[in-house]
Amino acid sequence: MSGSIQEPVVEDCAFDVFARACPSRGTLEHVTGRWGGLALGALYEGSLRFNELRRRVDGVSEKMLSQTLQALERDGLVHREAQPVNPPRVDYELTDLGRKVAERLLALIHCVEGAMDEVLTARARYDETRGAR
Amino acid sequence: MSGSIQEPVVEDCAFDVFARACPSRGTLEHVTGRWGGLALGALYEGSLRFNELRRRVDGVSEKMLSQTLQALERDGLVHREAQPVNPPRVDYELTDLGRKVAERLLALIHCVEGAMDEVLTARARYDETRGAR
Repeated sequence: MSGSIQEPVVEDCAFDVFARACPSRGTLEHVTGRWGGLALGALYEGSLRFNELRRRVDGVSEKMLSQTLQALERDGLVHREAQPVNPPRVDYELTDLGRKVAERLLALIHCVEGAMDEVLTARARYDETRGAR
Repeated sequence: MSGSIQEPVVEDCAFDVFARACPSRGTLEHVTGRWGGLALGALYEGSLRFNELRRRVDGVSEKMLSQTLQALERDGLVHREAQPVNPPRVDYELTDLGRKVAERLLALIHCVEGAMDEVLTARARYDETRGAR
């Protein structure tokens, strides 16, 4: 811990998601967006074809998944490999950087899943006290 | 590790963000949404008033921050305390559950911030090879 840093949770790093114009904010959105997070989580289990991935990420449309994967590929988190076979086949897998990010994301996902009993209790209490307003 | 679980990265838990109808998907979205994530991250540093929080989460509108905090409060992640002072003052702070979730989220945020040099290099390479299409 450097004593001169004012904000203890922000690491000594040129990028800061709290700053509106920082490009890390866009990447964080790709990683944590509705479909980006689930795609990264699914690919952490191993390489998948487009349609396998679409089944795993329950509810995503073909177009949204395609856009999501393109953003993750552009950020260097996902590698797209067109296989030279007939019929054509495209595999997706995480890059080394994608694996690092996906690990942190999955820790967060598991934390949220594990918290859901408490969350649902809190929601019921909130709705009970606010519903009368 | 239980040998009977098919998907190794999913913990033994009744909630699953990959399932469309699971309520954990909504909570994950509150936590990782554009403003929810930044609000949780900012509150991890300590209790803040509404306007302090708004300045910290650079770019958020009053309305969006208000909606964001309401969703996080309903999920039991943020505690809202109206102070009995004049002029009125409202403080926000993380609950214990909110702290647990925010810790995982900040680990992800720091990972993304630390990855940005690689991400920007990947983006430049992607745009170079795809731009000609």
